[in-house]
Amino acid sequence: MPPTEVLVPLRWSDMDAYGHVNNVQFLRLLEDARVLGLPRWFPQGGYLLDQGIVVARHEIEYLAPMDYRSEPIAVDLWVTRIGGAAFDLGYVVRDAAGPDRAAPGAADVGVTTATVYAVAETSMALYDFAAAGPRRMTRGERMALDAQRGESVPFRRRR
Amino acid sequence: MPPTEVLVPLRWSDMDAYGHVNNVQFLRLLEDARVLGLPRWFPQGGYLLDQGIVVARHEIEYLAPMDYRSEPIAVDLWVTRIGGAAFDLGYVVRDAAGPDRAAPGAADVGVTTATVYAVAETSMALYDFAAAGPRRMTRGERMALDAQRGESVPFRRRR
Amino acid sequence: MPPTEVLVPLRWSDMDAYGHVNNVQFLRLLEDARVLGLPRWFPQGGYLLDQGIVVARHEIEYLAPMDYRSEPIAVDLWVTRIGGAAFDLGYVVRDAAGPDRAAPGAADVGVTTATVYAVAETSMALYDFAAAGPRRMTRGERMALDAQRGESVPFRRRR
Amino acid sequence: MPPTEVLVPLRWSDMDAYGHVNNVQFLRLLEDARVLGLPRWFPQGGYLLDQGIVVARHEIEYLAPMDYRSEPIAVDLWVTRIGGAAFDLGYVVRDAAGPDRAAPGAADVGVTTATVYAVAETSMALYDFAAAGPRRMTRGERMALDAQRGESVPFRRRR
Repeated sequence: MPPTEVLVPLRWSDMDAYGHVNNVQFLRLLEDARVLGLPRWFPQGGYLLDQGIVVARHEIEYLAPMDYRSEPIAVDLWVTRIGGAAFDLGYVVRDAAGPDRAAPGAADVGVTTATVYAVAETSMALYDFAAAGPRRMTRGERMALDAQRGESVPFRRRR
Repeated sequence: MPPTEVLVPLRWSDMDAYGHVNNVQFLRLLEDARVLGLPRWFPQGGYLLDQGIVVARHEIEYLAPMDYRSEPIAVDLWVTRIGGAAFDLGYVVRDAAGPDRAAPGAADVGVTTATVYAVAETSMALYDFAAAGPRRMTRGERMALDAQRGESVPFRRRR
Repeated sequence: MPPTEVLVPLRWSDMDAYGHVNNVQFLRLLEDARVLGLPRWFPQGGYLLDQGIVVARHEIEYLAPMDYRSEPIAVDLWVTRIGGAAFDLGYVVRDAAGPDRAAPGAADVGVTTATVYAVAETSMALYDFAAAGPRRMTRGERMALDAQRGESVPFRRRR
Repeated sequence: MPPTEVLVPLRWSDMDAYGHVNNVQFLRLLEDARVLGLPRWFPQGGYLLDQGIVVARHEIEYLAPMDYRSEPIAVDLWVTRIGGAAFDLGYVVRDAAGPDRAAPGAADVGVTTATVYAVAETSMALYDFAAAGPRRMTRGERMALDAQRGESVPFRRRR
């Protein structure tokens, strides 16, 4: 299963005093990529977001400065690990494909010149808000996440 | 050298719809911890922030939900690695010490009941804005950073 | 000339601890409405944003609580006043039209059940960044803005 | 009763791509001025924030560009109007007094050279979250607010 492509709009205010999209705002973009993308993995509803998941960990590498543009950027979203009460998400933050963002004819041959701005990974812990504690993954959740499993995040600088 | 303690005020808007400080805002707090804390390491001025440093990588683990309070939280800030053109910072995000945040008598014996909310690490790359490229660390910068060197960040879930 | 309709995406983080879009974030949405909408009024480029405009004043009334949704909201944008070195913009923040946001058949008869969340007005001052001071509106700018002129903002509580 | 002075810390991220504190962030500063300042008017607790108040209207004029600084700015906060189920707050956003922000000897003679960055007014409506509707002001609330009543906000450009 290829990653899920989520288009995430930028805001002018994502830029900081250096005139580029601020490094913290990248995490904000990933948040919206999850909010927009995860429901697609649970088309029959009742998915885990309703029951509660919390962010337990983030890791992100910045590869290129991102400038503000009025068109959305693309975030590839997939599952990198599934545990008993947690799972990890991988992300690639890149230019969305489009006639103005690739060389002429590139799309025809599956080639893209899109810039990759960041790669990242988030650990999500399943949470039971009612019981105020962690909870086990259900069989249905595991099956839905397993269908989205992909490769490790291509970090360059992981310690 | 013990870590530098930086007091960082919260904002009411750091809370998200779940009523806790949002996970992305923790990175915002670390940003201000750097802005407030790094200049103290370069008391004679001319420190590296003037010349340009950019964030190359973040890693953060969330250990406890943080509630909004009108008093600042404390961020311990230190150096975990020094390279030729980069360095890593470690952080512990915790309650600031204070009579209302520790058991009676605790301060007298050096014991604190402060909650640790997160541990994190940031890789900073030295940058030459004029040349629009990376630059080597100067001898003075290295000496100043070396004086702040400490242990590894106590991550629990590092992949 | 009817107002320019600008579609502005929400972010999950626009919600505050009360679970609604935060009142300050409404101003953030207006910012993006300007960034996305004003260039449409200057299709030949060279428009005033390039030369510098600054916000001199905001006035906003909140009419209904807005919930987060993954679809954009609509901002109607028009000109309410033109001065020698400044102009005012009017806004209506409302649900975007759509089959799921209006009663059956409503669109056929031009009726909409869209909620209006806020009305607002911003005074923009023309600014010369190079000279670090105000500047006069050009004839071309005046003509472009004059084509977008509309009625006063329907404030209810203006003092 | 003179206005209540509330010290509000800035964040580095309050700056936008123009390198000044962003106009929308001024409203964010006013939010924290309310959160920090209003409880002081209700020293015995049980004050209206517990019961619910919502922002119904903002008006703000920008008078000078504000640069980021590590020290807090000052917000003067007072009551400009009291209604049956609502009240208005006035604000002046200015440099905090201090030895480095006034001419030598100025403090001795009550003179300050502090810059005023903005003046603003917010209408707050009393809200009953349980009943999901407006509510009347209590006698105790009215007395507490009446003690903070001051002059009109010195707007220059009110329409």
